Amino acid sequence: MKKEANATLKIVPLGGLEQIGMNITAFCYEDSIIVVDCGLKFPDDDMLGVDLVIPDVTFLKDNIDKVKGFVITHGHEDHIGAIPYILKDIKVPVYGTKLTIALIESKLKEHNMMKEVKRKVVKYGQSISLGDFRVEFIRTNHSIADAAALAIYSPAGTVVHTGDFKVDYTPVDGDPIDLPRLGEIGKKGVLALMCDSTNAIRPGFTMSERTVGATFDKIFADNKNSRIIIATFASNVDRVQQIINTAIKYDRKVCVEGRSMVNIIEVAQDLEYLKFPEGTIIETEEMKNYNPEQIVLITTGSQGESMAALSRMAANIHRKVSIIPGDCVVFSSTPIPGNEKSVSKVINELGMKGAKVIFQDTHVSGHACQEEIKLIYSLVRPKYSIPVHGEYRHLIAQKELVMGLGYDKQDVIIAKSGDIIELSEKEAKIVGKAPVGEVMVDGLGVGDIGNIVLRDRQNLAENGIIIVVLTFERNSGQLIAGPDIVSRGFVYVRGAEELLDEARLIVEDSVQKCIDNRISDWGKIKNIIKDDLSEFLWKKMKRNPLILPIIMEANL
Amino acid sequence: MKKEANATLKIVPLGGLEQIGMNITAFCYEDSIIVVDCGLKFPDDDMLGVDLVIPDVTFLKDNIDKVKGFVITHGHEDHIGAIPYILKDIKVPVYGTKLTIALIESKLKEHNMMKEVKRKVVKYGQSISLGDFRVEFIRTNHSIADAAALAIYSPAGTVVHTGDFKVDYTPVDGDPIDLPRLGEIGKKGVLALMCDSTNAIRPGFTMSERTVGATFDKIFADNKNSRIIIATFASNVDRVQQIINTAIKYDRKVCVEGRSMVNIIEVAQDLEYLKFPEGTIIETEEMKNYNPEQIVLITTGSQGESMAALSRMAANIHRKVSIIPGDCVVFSSTPIPGNEKSVSKVINELGMKGAKVIFQDTHVSGHACQEEIKLIYSLVRPKYSIPVHGEYRHLIAQKELVMGLGYDKQDVIIAKSGDIIELSEKEAKIVGKAPVGEVMVDGLGVGDIGNIVLRDRQNLAENGIIIVVLTFERNSGQLIAGPDIVSRGFVYVRGAEELLDEARLIVEDSVQKCIDNRISDWGKIKNIIKDDLSEFLWKKMKRNPLILPIIMEANL
Repeated sequence: MKKEANATLKIVPLGGLEQIGMNITAFCYEDSIIVVDCGLKFPDDDMLGVDLVIPDVTFLKDNIDKVKGFVITHGHEDHIGAIPYILKDIKVPVYGTKLTIALIESKLKEHNMMKEVKRKVVKYGQSISLGDFRVEFIRTNHSIADAAALAIYSPAGTVVHTGDFKVDYTPVDGDPIDLPRLGEIGKKGVLALMCDSTNAIRPGFTMSERTVGATFDKIFADNKNSRIIIATFASNVDRVQQIINTAIKYDRKVCVEGRSMVNIIEVAQDLEYLKFPEGTIIETEEMKNYNPEQIVLITTGSQGESMAALSRMAANIHRKVSIIPGDCVVFSSTPIPGNEKSVSKVINELGMKGAKVIFQDTHVSGHACQEEIKLIYSLVRPKYSIPVHGEYRHLIAQKELVMGLGYDKQDVIIAKSGDIIELSEKEAKIVGKAPVGEVMVDGLGVGDIGNIVLRDRQNLAENGIIIVVLTFERNSGQLIAGPDIVSRGFVYVRGAEELLDEARLIVEDSVQKCIDNRISDWGKIKNIIKDDLSEFLWKKMKRNPLILPIIMEANL
Repeated sequence: MKKEANATLKIVPLGGLEQIGMNITAFCYEDSIIVVDCGLKFPDDDMLGVDLVIPDVTFLKDNIDKVKGFVITHGHEDHIGAIPYILKDIKVPVYGTKLTIALIESKLKEHNMMKEVKRKVVKYGQSISLGDFRVEFIRTNHSIADAAALAIYSPAGTVVHTGDFKVDYTPVDGDPIDLPRLGEIGKKGVLALMCDSTNAIRPGFTMSERTVGATFDKIFADNKNSRIIIATFASNVDRVQQIINTAIKYDRKVCVEGRSMVNIIEVAQDLEYLKFPEGTIIETEEMKNYNPEQIVLITTGSQGESMAALSRMAANIHRKVSIIPGDCVVFSSTPIPGNEKSVSKVINELGMKGAKVIFQDTHVSGHACQEEIKLIYSLVRPKYSIPVHGEYRHLIAQKELVMGLGYDKQDVIIAKSGDIIELSEKEAKIVGKAPVGEVMVDGLGVGDIGNIVLRDRQNLAENGIIIVVLTFERNSGQLIAGPDIVSRGFVYVRGAEELLDEARLIVEDSVQKCIDNRISDWGKIKNIIKDDLSEFLWKKMKRNPLILPIIMEANL
């Protein structure tokens, strides 16, 4: 690609910075926009009842004629999960490696969108042209197969985006990350490197996926008389392959439980990313034909998710599998922050049912630690550094690392989602702000839950609700029914009759006060009821339920 | 104490087993009952809106004439927090070491109960007689000063209860745990050891509290030009003393923020458990008279609690302190499981305001690891082992350790809260079940929140509520007002008018159906409305709000 003097490139992260998840970044050069990744994030604790969160893409919709396509680095939810929602409105093709596209297709099928969205599989080393951009896919290692880094060539220069990655010299399947190609691209001159920060606070190197295989081998050797149950992330195909390999070595049959695990094994087997002789995997129903020591069960639920297969087994509510004393249960995972308590709960329940639980040395991260990050910088040698993927503290940790390599402070850009970063050979700076935000999905509703609804849910969750109903006659303005008081989530009503009786007397007084003072405005009446009742309940109980007066009008 | 042949002792844990927190255990010998500890626990995630949880002590109330007193091992909330609630009904004295009693007294003052509850300070090495029991207090080390193990002598034999403990050969204040006395008691013969299991899954030894002091020294030396802010647990008086010592060495003034931190420093200073020259601590208001590098601020909020002082500083809503770029903030703590995300949030916010955050080597645990547990067993050499303080997996881990020391399986008793454990020289067994449970405290209400209320709160939290109101005329049975529909926490109403209009039509149809079919039973009418509306909303939105029909009756 020919380089234009003084040309500038704009990079606009629409999500994924200062947060984990919801990765999506627009690259803009004149009339061309390409988008890297299109992920969701799981709701925060205070987003009560929300199923998932997708990025606000107003910026793309405002520039819809320029958008040429979506380029996806790998098939994790935080990189592909928003595609069915976002590509309903932005009808451009999606590019990715084989497994990535296959996982996107599962989603599109579920949303009945296979016809709407064009897909194209790209191989490592291949490039695609999108408007003024050319994008090359480069092999990396990660906790899912077929992960890619991207070299994004534009007339303003080249940007390398690592995606999520680690350096694995001995991967289970396929080759190590393509370090030589990164070096070659670096040699030609790279304007900016956007590098994964997830593990930037961790010193050293991330261990090879293969070390987990060695642990499995030891566990199988040590537990020859037990059924072995292994919970892991469904998308970690290499992990599943290692479990299957060990099962074959120790002459065990493999059962699979959990919807996402069954799905991904099917997809991966179709693509020949999982390889094993016929008859290795059996249906869970056939398990009864074997002794426990002839079985390995691979399952979801490694994060203690209450609806997942392992949690159901632990709670004795799984349809097909019950824990039997002596079972050896392996957590091949570490708890994602926020899940520690649920995981503990499942471990305790398994123990009470007589299972032995193993969770040490059974997992490695999929993200680069400090030494790997330095390695990538030393190969790519970019002019500017733009740390991506991580909370603020992770981005800052990468900044410190990079400055340790000799970079100037002003050449490391710590951006927020929405920042418009302008890059040229001369300088890198944040020149403006694009609209960004989190769109909440609840059931079929996309974006119909806002802060007011969440605030109400929070209040309802903590204090419950008291509803006061009254009916006035339209013409006379006479109170003809009520006030009646109904509560939910406030106190256990049996035993609290007296309190609710007292509350009704308070409301009757409030209504009488309104009548005496000829207050007929419903808004005012409601406020008086709310104030009086809320004062009474606070005095009496030190509680603050949501109070909802409803006034009806009868037309006789 | 004279030993009776064939005498049996009953131990009844009323909380604290298979859970963290709410420690309380009854020891029963003939007509004497003593109670060790009286703690609360903090509510689980699904106990929405609940402030704290205390044990159900029906067992004690049923035997109220036998209860001689409460013996408290140390002053943490999970050992003293339920005292103001439980001792309202069970009016017996409380025994503990000096700081423990002082902390209990702060609580009693708050609840206006100083006259109701008798207290007695016991020194290490002293014994108290309570009915048929004699209880000796033995010095231990823990993350709060004045922690004690108990030797409980009864005619059926001696039980040693460690309380929460670690072995610290170089404690900051006072002496190491009284290992010689434990050995002496062991030599005379111990029936059972009840030993802290919190860290039983961790190999090795817990580090000395003094190592944290060395880290503080390094941090102060490395950050000579910054204001230093240190967040830690208020009750860790030794930690606070080390911060103050380091402040004095580096010529800094100390400010204190956070209600519990201010309280405990006052209490500890009164008792001379905290020692420093006058003028060391200054009011936060005076901070402006000093340069940042002359100040150390000790604060609460090390767990990311949203209302605590540090979180308020990070969010820029603290009344007196704002973070200034260059501040060095130290988390002298590790996140308690469940708090990881809140802590991360505060770290990110501090970083964005320009603070440097340190959280490595700044904390040690207060609980014994595996080698320390083995040491205690080797000194006390009990006949039976009853692991306490911990989730099931921790108790089991101690069991494995103890069996590794040569104990027989049947001599290690893994009990649940409520189990009645009967011990004699001949055997140890679980002979029955006492009533146990968790009593939820919300505001001034104790025990008025039950499962129905929590289920409603959960449902309200996730889905919101739709209220349908109708008024019938009493004599004619005619519908004279409504159906009106009001929702909270369901959808953002602006923009959803159409949906709610449709919903009203559905309800109107349901009501008409009832009228046509001469259904006048209100229960039936409500069910029909609920079913029809819930089916409509599920089809339309895949959501399940709580639907609450309210029927009123007008008397004209």
